[in-house]
Amino acid sequence: MGEKLEEKPVLYSYWRSSCSWRVRIALNLKEIPYDIKAVSLIKGGGEQHCNEYREVNPMEQVPSLIIDGQTLIESLSIMHYLEETRPQRSLMPQDCYKRAKVREICEVICSGIQPLQNLIVLIHVGEEKKKEWAQHWITRGFRAVEKLLSSIAGKYCVGDEITLADCCLVPQVPRRPKAFSNNTTYRQGVGEPSSIPCCPSISSTRLPS
Amino acid sequence: MGEKLEEKPVLYSYWRSSCSWRVRIALNLKEIPYDIKAVSLIKGGGEQHCNEYREVNPMEQVPSLIIDGQTLIESLSIMHYLEETRPQRSLMPQDCYKRAKVREICEVICSGIQPLQNLIVLIHVGEEKKKEWAQHWITRGFRAVEKLLSSIAGKYCVGDEITLADCCLVPQVPRRPKAFSNNTTYRQGVGEPSSIPCCPSISSTRLPS
Repeated sequence: MGEKLEEKPVLYSYWRSSCSWRVRIALNLKEIPYDIKAVSLIKGGGEQHCNEYREVNPMEQVPSLIIDGQTLIESLSIMHYLEETRPQRSLMPQDCYKRAKVREICEVICSGIQPLQNLIVLIHVGEEKKKEWAQHWITRGFRAVEKLLSSIAGKYCVGDEITLADCCLVPQVPRRPKAFSNNTTYRQGVGEPSSIPCCPSISSTRLPS
Repeated sequence: MGEKLEEKPVLYSYWRSSCSWRVRIALNLKEIPYDIKAVSLIKGGGEQHCNEYREVNPMEQVPSLIIDGQTLIESLSIMHYLEETRPQRSLMPQDCYKRAKVREICEVICSGIQPLQNLIVLIHVGEEKKKEWAQHWITRGFRAVEKLLSSIAGKYCVGDEITLADCCLVPQVPRRPKAFSNNTTYRQGVGEPSSIPCCPSISSTRLPS
């Protein structure tokens, strides 16, 4: 059968990308060593659009993860793969209802907020309108997130254990409208990077350019 | 312990909603009987924005599913809940890599295409620009979907078994740009409603208004 080489996973990432940050949090929590390949979303109109990277990720986005000899894209899919193949420090509850609630919060953030306010969309919206546009969709999304958290959050998004919902919420919180920053409907600290042990900072993978 | 009443699930749905259609396909494939509550996204500016429905779904979207005495939102989360609690006719592969590929296709559609071209976003974009806007993001997304399918599709999106990826692709196909309708990179029929046994038609839950 031959010896299977366990190569260190490689994360294509950009330090300001909230989607990359989600995966970095999950990798840290599961204590999976990995290397970073920086993909600047700014330099030269965005390195993610070059032919070489398009072969890695046809959506021309970060993150992508090379792991187990395969290329994976889409942050939520990557995190579920890590959860299924590296079960240490589980980031999903056992209970089916709580699992659904974790996924709901992930989806509201990952399909209801982030795609509408990411860099590529704001460039398309244009300089003049982008601030109003982003605020509109972020406010709508956080109103829903807060409502969901009010019924299910404990010390973390869903109960008292860290889950994938926290991996998704933490990177979105820096763009949270001020109106939501002093919420009283769930415990203070939920969604704050400081609440997650070993949480990588947003800039921790900033590489010399 | 008392007798547990097995109430029929109730799907809040709108016949033209692609996200509702995803869940209807999964419910049909798993042969789960359910009732429909129609929520018109058109009437009176959208019934999904009324106070009563906002209590059901804080994102003010369809679908929502009342099942097992709980309210679930977000189509992907709902489908995974059905998969975990109603394992008949599984819609996820056993293999972790294939599971990741299913989730990738789901995410590209559910976070990379649909949120940018749904009714509420097009209203915000405005009558004048909405066609160009929708085509831009749908084309980008389908280019990625086609690339993913070219390496993993068989009779269906991922191999030869129907998965959640098919439940997501079928409702997006009616909005597929013409350039992709005669693809040759994967087997013809993938993503077509006619390829899915018992696939509900888009209009099958159109209720008298």
